[in-house]
Amino acid sequence: MRMYDLIIKKRNGETLSEEEIKYMIAEYTADRIPDYQMSAMMMAIYFQGMSAEETVALTMAMAHSGEMLDLSAISGIKVDKHSTGGVGDKTSIALTPMVAACGVKIAKMSGRGLGHTGGTIDKLESFEGFTTGISTEHFMKQVNEIGVSIMGQTMNIAPADKKLYALRDVTATVDNMSLIASSIMSKKLAAGADAIVLDVKTGSGAFMKKEEDAFALAKEMVTLGNMAGRHTIAVVSDMDQPLGYAVGNALEVEEAIATLRGEGPEDFTKLCMTLGTYMLIAGGVADNEDIAGRMLSDVIKNGSALRKLADFVAAQGGNAKAVYDTSLLPKASITEEILSEKAGYVKKIDCDEIGICSLILGGGRETKESVIDLSVGMILHKKVGDFVQTGESLATVYANDRDKLEVAKERFLKAYHFDERQPEKLPFIKGVIRQ
Amino acid sequence: MRMYDLIIKKRNGETLSEEEIKYMIAEYTADRIPDYQMSAMMMAIYFQGMSAEETVALTMAMAHSGEMLDLSAISGIKVDKHSTGGVGDKTSIALTPMVAACGVKIAKMSGRGLGHTGGTIDKLESFEGFTTGISTEHFMKQVNEIGVSIMGQTMNIAPADKKLYALRDVTATVDNMSLIASSIMSKKLAAGADAIVLDVKTGSGAFMKKEEDAFALAKEMVTLGNMAGRHTIAVVSDMDQPLGYAVGNALEVEEAIATLRGEGPEDFTKLCMTLGTYMLIAGGVADNEDIAGRMLSDVIKNGSALRKLADFVAAQGGNAKAVYDTSLLPKASITEEILSEKAGYVKKIDCDEIGICSLILGGGRETKESVIDLSVGMILHKKVGDFVQTGESLATVYANDRDKLEVAKERFLKAYHFDERQPEKLPFIKGVIRQ
Repeated sequence: MRMYDLIIKKRNGETLSEEEIKYMIAEYTADRIPDYQMSAMMMAIYFQGMSAEETVALTMAMAHSGEMLDLSAISGIKVDKHSTGGVGDKTSIALTPMVAACGVKIAKMSGRGLGHTGGTIDKLESFEGFTTGISTEHFMKQVNEIGVSIMGQTMNIAPADKKLYALRDVTATVDNMSLIASSIMSKKLAAGADAIVLDVKTGSGAFMKKEEDAFALAKEMVTLGNMAGRHTIAVVSDMDQPLGYAVGNALEVEEAIATLRGEGPEDFTKLCMTLGTYMLIAGGVADNEDIAGRMLSDVIKNGSALRKLADFVAAQGGNAKAVYDTSLLPKASITEEILSEKAGYVKKIDCDEIGICSLILGGGRETKESVIDLSVGMILHKKVGDFVQTGESLATVYANDRDKLEVAKERFLKAYHFDERQPEKLPFIKGVIRQ
Repeated sequence: MRMYDLIIKKRNGETLSEEEIKYMIAEYTADRIPDYQMSAMMMAIYFQGMSAEETVALTMAMAHSGEMLDLSAISGIKVDKHSTGGVGDKTSIALTPMVAACGVKIAKMSGRGLGHTGGTIDKLESFEGFTTGISTEHFMKQVNEIGVSIMGQTMNIAPADKKLYALRDVTATVDNMSLIASSIMSKKLAAGADAIVLDVKTGSGAFMKKEEDAFALAKEMVTLGNMAGRHTIAVVSDMDQPLGYAVGNALEVEEAIATLRGEGPEDFTKLCMTLGTYMLIAGGVADNEDIAGRMLSDVIKNGSALRKLADFVAAQGGNAKAVYDTSLLPKASITEEILSEKAGYVKKIDCDEIGICSLILGGGRETKESVIDLSVGMILHKKVGDFVQTGESLATVYANDRDKLEVAKERFLKAYHFDERQPEKLPFIKGVIRQ
């Protein structure tokens, strides 16, 4: 078998066999196929696409390119959750304790990644002492005992995907549904869960700007997951404005805690309830949406979801007192209101721009080496559809550096767009994809 | 400017500017753009194509990536000739003396290359002592004095093309008309001639198997050459069977000499007359086809074309006596007839296969390091349309190794296809492309 012949085949619109895809991924991972051939292949795939069978073969080959996490030591159905990411996305912090409190096992691996704010691991480090640097034994034991654990990605998970994504990133071959889906799903499959619930976001703050693209990706991933024998469901939700009101690591943790007390923002609560519903169904503890919804409401009302978060934080060395007293979370030294220079209904918020404000304040990571300031960020006071008076506060900024604050403020103001008429309210949950 | 953005642009079907193409080629030649980005770009071009303007910009950028040969020390219009290559293609050896004898200056750079037989330089080395390793001064002086010289490609001509072609060759991105045309034309433009006559071949022994592809390439190159200010004409000719009867270096030289004596094969003579006609027109010594044709017939009849070859060979150190006594050319030790096992009209000859027989005998180069045996090859006795009796000779094989001869013979026989009916005779010259 020669990579050259495989490139020709794909270029000419033919279908690659499972054998050929396995060969390609194994040889590429072993550095026996050069980057220049793989990038030509990726561009050929960009134009010719991949069949469902090819995409499954690619996903499986990448999943098996490194270690496969074996969760069989954990009893019951293990459910994983993945979000395609967005601004103000603190979902895992509220959702995993909710679901675990309902009896579903959550064994999740998480990365730090680059972005406007930190990843889930960074956010959780707002609890003093909290660590994801735990052993696999600790991880398994904790899931068995309290139902939830999040471990840092220390294992060699899907190295083929890592290498291939880095190449696609610099050769303009990221934008292909099959490739995006296989990249995400290869890591999820290697992470070992029995069921996967996907949070696919769409809008100006999401990777998928267009709703049709988000649905296409969701469908592709659900097909992939199910073809690989994992019960997979996707929820498509809005990311055209930040999720909830808080953007910034500790600020988002505080909002997640509020949500577990039943005092969360409407959109964020809705998202947790929807994703949670399908996690309970996939986890086999609820038969339908109604039952699942009631179970989730109950664990919020009776405080068991909040207690689950405290147990989870404590089990990984964190100061669980902060769950009940959020003044113990990291605090910024400067607080300032951003006052609106215009009046009218908020018509649109450039969501990515709000994320960049967080990055400017120091809340995100520009390079792998960046150190995150957990205390900075913003609490929005106005979202799309709200009426604003001139001089009224759009948001409170939390900062530790006055220069950065000024730059962020200026950029923040430009991200808000107003109209005289109140815009039509669009549904927050766009759809659910099940097989 | 970033290569990443240029890949996106081309991928999305937009047009690259001259500035962008210049940047891309300059940076790639200087190893500041990695192969993996360039191969992605080439694959994007494969799918999105290039406009005439983009192709000109690419050709000019590659032409200017190294040294540009300055032929201004040679008086008059300098005409170059290029063939896309085929089996039995000894055209330059007969054509250049014919044209030079009519008063057109031929200053030609030539390479050795890989292939079924050697390149023009290898073939000319059949004249004992002949060398193309001459200085640029010698080259210029010789063209001024006798009207023709062929120099080995010692200069750094179009290094961008060299690097890019090597990459395309291993990434399945050769097959694009604009890229093929710009590769050929960048070298021709750098070689400095005022006018270029292109011999584009089509058929089973040619790079362009399909006639429509050959015409498309011819048109693209003619447009390119003329846009770059060089008078360019292309002739599309048949390569569905070997050109003439001789295949093999010294054997082809002998056939070229016979042609200069007016005793050449019909198809080969026709090709030299046609290409020669347009070289005389492009060189400004003939106003039309009729005049040019008469001039070429005259230099054959009066022996001045043959004398020009002898002068040319002598001027570059070769034994010119061999022009008049071909027994002085390299001779193989074994001669054997290939007898037909079937009877009927020759319907088709797998032309590439005949080339491979020459390669098997040792007449070509498989790697850059291969040493060519100038004496081996075949003289065909039967071509398409000829009737053959069982046991009649299809060809005489010239070899120096009995084992190789047996392998070549077996393969040769399989390349001939017969039919009861005489196949329709198709025109040898398929068309001429002028602007």
